[in-house]
Amino acid sequence: MQKLEALHDSHNDFYRSPFGAVPCNTGITLRLKITTTEDIHQTLLWLKEEKKEPKCMRMDLVKQTGDERLYQIAIEAAPNPMLLWYYFIIDCHHITYYYGNNNKSFGGEGEMQLQIPPAYQITVYRKDTYVPEWFQEAIMYQIFPDRFFNGTDDGKVLSPKPNSFIYGNWQDSPVYLKENATGRILRWEFFGGNLMGIIKKLPYLKELGINVLYLNPIFESPSNHRYDTADYMKIDSMLGNNQIFKALCREAKKNGISIILDGVFSHTGSDSIYFNRENTYDETGAYQSKASLYYSWYRFEEFPNKYGAWWGIDTMPNVNEMEKSYQNFVFGNEDSVIKYWMKMGVMGWRLDVADELPSIFIKELRKAMKEVTPHSILIGEVWEDASNKISYGERREYLLGEELDSVMNYPFRKILLDFFLEKEDAAYTHHALMSLHENYPTCYFYSMMNLIGSHDVPRILTLLGASLEEDALTQEEKEKFLLKGNKKELAVARLKLLTLLQMTFPGVPSIYYGDEAGVEGHGDPLNRRTYPWGKQNMELLNWYKKIIRLRHRYEVLKKGKWKGVYANGDIYGFVREKEDGDAALILVNRSHRASHNVTIELGYIKKRILIDVLNDHKESLLENRKLQISLGPLEGRLYIGKR
Amino acid sequence: MQKLEALHDSHNDFYRSPFGAVPCNTGITLRLKITTTEDIHQTLLWLKEEKKEPKCMRMDLVKQTGDERLYQIAIEAAPNPMLLWYYFIIDCHHITYYYGNNNKSFGGEGEMQLQIPPAYQITVYRKDTYVPEWFQEAIMYQIFPDRFFNGTDDGKVLSPKPNSFIYGNWQDSPVYLKENATGRILRWEFFGGNLMGIIKKLPYLKELGINVLYLNPIFESPSNHRYDTADYMKIDSMLGNNQIFKALCREAKKNGISIILDGVFSHTGSDSIYFNRENTYDETGAYQSKASLYYSWYRFEEFPNKYGAWWGIDTMPNVNEMEKSYQNFVFGNEDSVIKYWMKMGVMGWRLDVADELPSIFIKELRKAMKEVTPHSILIGEVWEDASNKISYGERREYLLGEELDSVMNYPFRKILLDFFLEKEDAAYTHHALMSLHENYPTCYFYSMMNLIGSHDVPRILTLLGASLEEDALTQEEKEKFLLKGNKKELAVARLKLLTLLQMTFPGVPSIYYGDEAGVEGHGDPLNRRTYPWGKQNMELLNWYKKIIRLRHRYEVLKKGKWKGVYANGDIYGFVREKEDGDAALILVNRSHRASHNVTIELGYIKKRILIDVLNDHKESLLENRKLQISLGPLEGRLYIGKR
Repeated sequence: MQKLEALHDSHNDFYRSPFGAVPCNTGITLRLKITTTEDIHQTLLWLKEEKKEPKCMRMDLVKQTGDERLYQIAIEAAPNPMLLWYYFIIDCHHITYYYGNNNKSFGGEGEMQLQIPPAYQITVYRKDTYVPEWFQEAIMYQIFPDRFFNGTDDGKVLSPKPNSFIYGNWQDSPVYLKENATGRILRWEFFGGNLMGIIKKLPYLKELGINVLYLNPIFESPSNHRYDTADYMKIDSMLGNNQIFKALCREAKKNGISIILDGVFSHTGSDSIYFNRENTYDETGAYQSKASLYYSWYRFEEFPNKYGAWWGIDTMPNVNEMEKSYQNFVFGNEDSVIKYWMKMGVMGWRLDVADELPSIFIKELRKAMKEVTPHSILIGEVWEDASNKISYGERREYLLGEELDSVMNYPFRKILLDFFLEKEDAAYTHHALMSLHENYPTCYFYSMMNLIGSHDVPRILTLLGASLEEDALTQEEKEKFLLKGNKKELAVARLKLLTLLQMTFPGVPSIYYGDEAGVEGHGDPLNRRTYPWGKQNMELLNWYKKIIRLRHRYEVLKKGKWKGVYANGDIYGFVREKEDGDAALILVNRSHRASHNVTIELGYIKKRILIDVLNDHKESLLENRKLQISLGPLEGRLYIGKR
Repeated sequence: MQKLEALHDSHNDFYRSPFGAVPCNTGITLRLKITTTEDIHQTLLWLKEEKKEPKCMRMDLVKQTGDERLYQIAIEAAPNPMLLWYYFIIDCHHITYYYGNNNKSFGGEGEMQLQIPPAYQITVYRKDTYVPEWFQEAIMYQIFPDRFFNGTDDGKVLSPKPNSFIYGNWQDSPVYLKENATGRILRWEFFGGNLMGIIKKLPYLKELGINVLYLNPIFESPSNHRYDTADYMKIDSMLGNNQIFKALCREAKKNGISIILDGVFSHTGSDSIYFNRENTYDETGAYQSKASLYYSWYRFEEFPNKYGAWWGIDTMPNVNEMEKSYQNFVFGNEDSVIKYWMKMGVMGWRLDVADELPSIFIKELRKAMKEVTPHSILIGEVWEDASNKISYGERREYLLGEELDSVMNYPFRKILLDFFLEKEDAAYTHHALMSLHENYPTCYFYSMMNLIGSHDVPRILTLLGASLEEDALTQEEKEKFLLKGNKKELAVARLKLLTLLQMTFPGVPSIYYGDEAGVEGHGDPLNRRTYPWGKQNMELLNWYKKIIRLRHRYEVLKKGKWKGVYANGDIYGFVREKEDGDAALILVNRSHRASHNVTIELGYIKKRILIDVLNDHKESLLENRKLQISLGPLEGRLYIGKR
């Protein structure tokens, strides 16, 4: 091996051009540089289009200088959306070398191996793929409706469900009430947040700078999370009613805010019109009789007590999404779930457990959406790199142009978290972000739902202040856990830097309600604490307002091309740059101990004067177009290139 | 044995005179009849005064007729209150016979044995013992305050505690919320009944005919039952405040209703001013420091985590009732717990777990009470025959004149329940009631708290309608359990007969809130359901009103001497008779299948005409002063002798 070195760097357009994902039929040039004294018999490109046999194609030796040889090949992306996979084979008579993706499959520089290597990915997407611009420019806010605000006039909780509990105080700590023996839910507990509460807080959201409101489920259901839908056509009576929801859509629109709903279509509740196991509804449910109109929606192994259920939880029976009557109900009919609510003003859906839904179901659902509202948005719940996610043995085509408009960008969250928790350095961080950039079609990269928190992960502040993995807290200790002193300061400072990156990164920044107010909490249910009205962390809240205002003010932060500029140890920086020359430079020092002097080459930025907009300070580039600055511990900068 | 028969019947004043319990120094004549052909050497009375050595005294042969001999002895009750125990020894040279109490120790006819038999009991009480008359004439109502009525103007729950739950609906089914692993309470749940609610419902109680209101604990505490007192000087803020309580006392008095509080002095809460384990209070609690003012109140095995606690429940640390500073706090000081609340208008206390309190503590507490309000009442929680209860190896002197004024008459409840559930027949029933009559000093027998329900036993209606012991219901099934159809009718009919006996029996009938409205439920917490305002069982409620009105109208039902008159199989009857000749006859047929024709000898009743007041019907005695009637299934009669 020592005698032969090779290099292909998919992130460098000398080696792969154009960069990243490409539309169908795009011509792509791939290059491989080999440095060796050995005799090379031939250099091959191993290329596989999905669902086809792989091909091996001979690369051309286009340049040779001393021991250095450059091989090149031009290929054409497939005529239909898919993933392409490639690596290189270097045949030296006596030995065959392979050059493929690195062991994290992040793209960029690869690795030489003596065996079949991981392949590089080229995402090939529909030519006409686009995501509505309004969404790309938006800032999203996620609300878990029971926990945001109770907007009844008298402060009473609206229509409590039979045998449910109401928390004694808005600031109480959420807890699951489970049966001792079975671990099943004994009673559901509610704080009593509702749609009137959201309407009343629209001015707050507007002031914060929000344009999209994503609501966790709001349809009738027995639980507080409402993922066990009871009636898709009815707003849960604890939240309001259909008229109040209509008013919310209208008032939100007046405030420039679009509503996105949670579409839970992989399962229903067992206590629903459709399944009716608990005999709550008048209609005959699938559980009650094979003659039920809904019987075919479900998959019974043994009627009625053995049936497929989400994660085996018997209160959430899975549906058969390929069943025509179910599809018609969800999106096909004129009065289908999707169409009914979109006609009421809904601007999009977040598809729950998108990876459990058949592609065809998603595609048809999206078509139905766009029929009602062409510029509406479909976001998928995906936890991994959505470009190459395999679920249930099938490669998902989420981002090739016909399924989703956006996905929940959990990888983004993890990458930033690992950086700020000092698990990974800046180089790794950039590399990991580049991998998303490379694999996602550009329009999607610019419309990812860049979330930092959600109802499914611990609160960001808690994660940033406590080493959770090292904590072996009991549930009781977790309930009482609040960051204090240094740890609290550290967490707040980190969160400000993290959101500086989030709000200046391509995509749609998403705020999980209360993160901006300093809400803390470990995992579910402690990540679903109420919004602390009147007790917000004002330092954080003011920071959020400031950074969001900046994003809205400088279009370059929404639309500018993204490019890494510095990634070394504690310091990470990137630039955003528009074709018209507008530019921004973002830099953070994630260390809470060390200051760092940094010199950054900024030759390609067309501006000489940078405004440090966080500190209202002017910074000039050196004559050699370098920026020399010192970043204190946990310091971040946002420079805007002066016109 | 066949050759010798003997008879002593303590319930018959030919054999023992006077009947029952006697004041100190009373002369008592005891007789034993022996029928034998054998030669009797001597007949002895074995007599034991408590804490003394037993004596054997020779009985006189006062009469001999054929084989029948009558022995007699006159003894004098001890000069100080105590129990006397006796049996008979018949010495026939070659063999010694014993004649003592029957195997249930019920008194009445005894049994011959060849070994030491159970002894008969004579209760000897203080000469000047009396119970305030107002109490003897009262009808009591017990309220579990969280569950009776929420009287806030806006219907909101008052001041919910931190991390507590409020039931979503007043009619929800109560449930304990426990930690899976430890079984400890996870959160406390409240319906939000309060003192304003009780004030608002005083007219209801007055109309029902209530004179005494016994409230389960109302002092500050973390739980819904409030037996874990946090602050003895403060009304729990969910119930109101001290001023509202004062108003309740005042308003109740206006309605002729006296308030009795629950005195919980064997333990405090751990989350209290005094123990302060949870660090809720500013003062230093015993758990926090040995320097605490309250340290000496508790018994630490190992400071601070090992301490005596009620039933081992660590949220209820036991106190040392002999500690002087504790006694001063509870009753000694002028601003002691007892005196503070009595000055506010409280007319009595129900002493929780009286059997865990030292006698001297009870006596001193009672003295302190009577200093403030001479006619106040002290009731003990006692589950057995209170005259001879032994607890922790010590005979309790509850009813000898210096401790309690009354006890919770759980034996009465059990006797009636066994009768109506057909576990025991009328003869047994009468015998069991006679035992209480015999053992309790008369003034106490006429002031027992004759309860049928309480917060510690299943609801009476459920017990009367379902064979609970045969039920192997899960907790979930119990939650949903409601009597239906025949069972419901049976239970209601039985309850009406049972309360006919309760309301015409000597003592203070006590109604557990909601029993009169048809509330059902198995054991705790299902026996603590809310009062069903607007959904009462009107048949029952009207019955309760009617029978209570009758008790109030006819003084004989409160003060008349009680005497069994018929006890055979399904039919039980007794009379009440006053010295002035007023009389009442109560009869019930507990069978739900059989009718019975009954002829009752009523020679001793001075009236010839009986009014069947339930049916407004006149009944004449036969010439031979016999009453001949037919009682249908589950039929009861209340006859009042016409003046």
